[in-house]
Amino acid sequence: MKKNITKPSILPGFMELLPSDQIAFNKMLNIIRRNYEKFGFAPIDTPIIEKSEILLAKSGGDTEKQIYRFNKGDNDLSLRFDLTVPLARYVAQHMSSLNFPFKRYQIGKVFRGERNQRGRFREFYQCDIDIVGNGKLSIINDAEIPSIIYSTFKELGFDSFTIHINNRKILNGFFDSLNIKNKTDVLRIIDKLDKIGLGAVKEELSDLGIENSALQKIIEFINIEGTNDEILNALNKLNISNETFKTGLDELAKVCYYIKCFDVPESNFIIDLKIARGLDYYTGTVYETILNDYPSIGSVCSGGRYDNLAEYYTNQKLPGVGISIGLTRLFYQFKEANIIADNGTSTPSAILVISLDDNLEYTISVANKLIKNNINADTYLEEGKVSKKLNYADKLGVTYVILIGSEERETNILTLKNMKTGEQFKLTIEDIIKKIR
Amino acid sequence: MKKNITKPSILPGFMELLPSDQIAFNKMLNIIRRNYEKFGFAPIDTPIIEKSEILLAKSGGDTEKQIYRFNKGDNDLSLRFDLTVPLARYVAQHMSSLNFPFKRYQIGKVFRGERNQRGRFREFYQCDIDIVGNGKLSIINDAEIPSIIYSTFKELGFDSFTIHINNRKILNGFFDSLNIKNKTDVLRIIDKLDKIGLGAVKEELSDLGIENSALQKIIEFINIEGTNDEILNALNKLNISNETFKTGLDELAKVCYYIKCFDVPESNFIIDLKIARGLDYYTGTVYETILNDYPSIGSVCSGGRYDNLAEYYTNQKLPGVGISIGLTRLFYQFKEANIIADNGTSTPSAILVISLDDNLEYTISVANKLIKNNINADTYLEEGKVSKKLNYADKLGVTYVILIGSEERETNILTLKNMKTGEQFKLTIEDIIKKIR
Repeated sequence: MKKNITKPSILPGFMELLPSDQIAFNKMLNIIRRNYEKFGFAPIDTPIIEKSEILLAKSGGDTEKQIYRFNKGDNDLSLRFDLTVPLARYVAQHMSSLNFPFKRYQIGKVFRGERNQRGRFREFYQCDIDIVGNGKLSIINDAEIPSIIYSTFKELGFDSFTIHINNRKILNGFFDSLNIKNKTDVLRIIDKLDKIGLGAVKEELSDLGIENSALQKIIEFINIEGTNDEILNALNKLNISNETFKTGLDELAKVCYYIKCFDVPESNFIIDLKIARGLDYYTGTVYETILNDYPSIGSVCSGGRYDNLAEYYTNQKLPGVGISIGLTRLFYQFKEANIIADNGTSTPSAILVISLDDNLEYTISVANKLIKNNINADTYLEEGKVSKKLNYADKLGVTYVILIGSEERETNILTLKNMKTGEQFKLTIEDIIKKIR
Repeated sequence: MKKNITKPSILPGFMELLPSDQIAFNKMLNIIRRNYEKFGFAPIDTPIIEKSEILLAKSGGDTEKQIYRFNKGDNDLSLRFDLTVPLARYVAQHMSSLNFPFKRYQIGKVFRGERNQRGRFREFYQCDIDIVGNGKLSIINDAEIPSIIYSTFKELGFDSFTIHINNRKILNGFFDSLNIKNKTDVLRIIDKLDKIGLGAVKEELSDLGIENSALQKIIEFINIEGTNDEILNALNKLNISNETFKTGLDELAKVCYYIKCFDVPESNFIIDLKIARGLDYYTGTVYETILNDYPSIGSVCSGGRYDNLAEYYTNQKLPGVGISIGLTRLFYQFKEANIIADNGTSTPSAILVISLDDNLEYTISVANKLIKNNINADTYLEEGKVSKKLNYADKLGVTYVILIGSEERETNILTLKNMKTGEQFKLTIEDIIKKIR
């Protein structure tokens, strides 16, 4: 009787990796998690399915179209589309049990039914940290965030990256001082500067109805360059009396001062007056992180300060600051840019133990000893020719094999073979354990 | 203007933990993952959303009612309800890229819209390992599985637990030898023995139409007791000529022999002729794991051998053996049984550094040094009274604080306070690093 076979496949826009890539992916994820914990962020894990009324409390725009929303019984359910809305709900719900400032990280999958497009994913990992205050939160927290970005991307293997920092209050105050009403449109145009060039930016701003004198000042403003101190000086010299601007400038100066206390080298952060971050809830400091050798990837880690995290779930004011790494997309981009090369290793084992003559008792005992000494090890348990067993080891990409025949069993001197170099060593199990460690 | 506030809550049947519990949960999860990797299982991570035609290829029964299924655009989608069906699809889909025997682990959330019930979850973690062969797979793999269970539960902190082992072929062959047709019903009744007692089992079997002579033999069979060797001897002495029975007995004897080679103490595994595992795809060895001090929790880790993993997605025969730990339910049960006590620690930090006089530069530099030496550390950055800062440390449940005032800054001799014991030490930062490590 022939079964009905369903062709095995997954949906477009979903990432699924072979073991060798999955190991590389998990390595990145573990580095991010370890760094988040090193700086004292506690883990939380919110449900993937929540009530639609919660996730869509702040409704509108693209979110509603992209969300996976459905009914089960009487319930109107949605899959989370980010980790920020669940954080807001979590903090509001558990407020009395939490200790503020509340430092949490969350790493998990989020879901957006976006238009299918190369490099865009409908299910993807976000790795978020946030520091949330109850009522208030010192600006110095905004200076700690870059030190976590710095530590994380250093450990991910990068030396040359720049954390771009700005403060939304400077932009807002500056535009207010010019009597510009449609700030969002102006920001959107300025944001395209690198893409479309100064001429086109001028034209678009002019089309927006920005007067010539204001236009001149905007161009002057976004052309401010130099070291961080030079930029802060130039901003001071603009002599803008707008209070929001002055607060923003004061905050930015403080953040830059304390970032140095947090041991981030001057070469790894820069004031960038052009960044604003699209999300409308940022109200102060904003961050973007650019890998200097791969600028086309765009920002690899972004975030900022917000005044009020959970306004839809509580009247309590909860200011905070946070960042997010979109790991699934980042991994995809790193693969595309050959930043991550497949080293062909599809096992967490350091050693595969192989019996030359299908005599397994002693072979298994060797693997046992390795495992008990915290060396990941595997035994090849199938019967067959030695060539087949070595072929398996080769395909697995394991670095070492131990080959065991009657001689090894009698003498307890084992043959350790490095599969990458072809070298062979005659060693006792104790010496192998020392060597591998 | 007053905002509309949505009361923050999650759906019933979903687990969400406060940070201190989440830390305990993650500790368990990490132990499970580390043990799976120690034995050479490679990670995979399949999508949470798959095509319904894939997940429901083998349709029927409770699964379809419980599944979260919905449409998005033209697609009929479902959330995975276990990790076995996705594994089957994964192996069939990527067969040519995988290396067999394929050892994989997967830890992730699965979804079942079960009836709401205390201790039952609609979103829960499963932690699975499987060894999948292409065409065939040595029975010795069935003996490796208990060594992974043993290693994992030892590291989870248990000494007294028993891995119960049986072989479905023994049960099937035995029932065949008695000409019993409705084996599943008989197994279901035998499975209730501990709950309802021998008398009731006899009655139910009799109601099923089992003849007296067969009934007698069944009772005799399930009463076989003793050491593993004694049970194997007793099974041999039954002199059953049924081929399936003989194969099963041979397999069980081999598995028991090799389990000892894999260094599992005799006191931690036992042949249990009464276990069958409900799932109809197990065809050989089956496992259940009982914590001897908490038998009411039931099996904490179960699984078995199956003949054909992916029959709905490929004609290739893929036998395998695997186990699963239902971590969400297990964590819930461990909390209920006070196996996990809340130690009140809601931070991954070992140390919180506190400034006595809101002078933060030096304070931050101390935390930097700890973090660079791989000690998780946090700085209290808010201004305020010392009592408020110590209260924060206390609520956070951090073990150590470092208190820094002008004296400490001048002398570089810091005050380390153990928050649990109240002890204070005057130490240099280097000595603190040594002490904490």
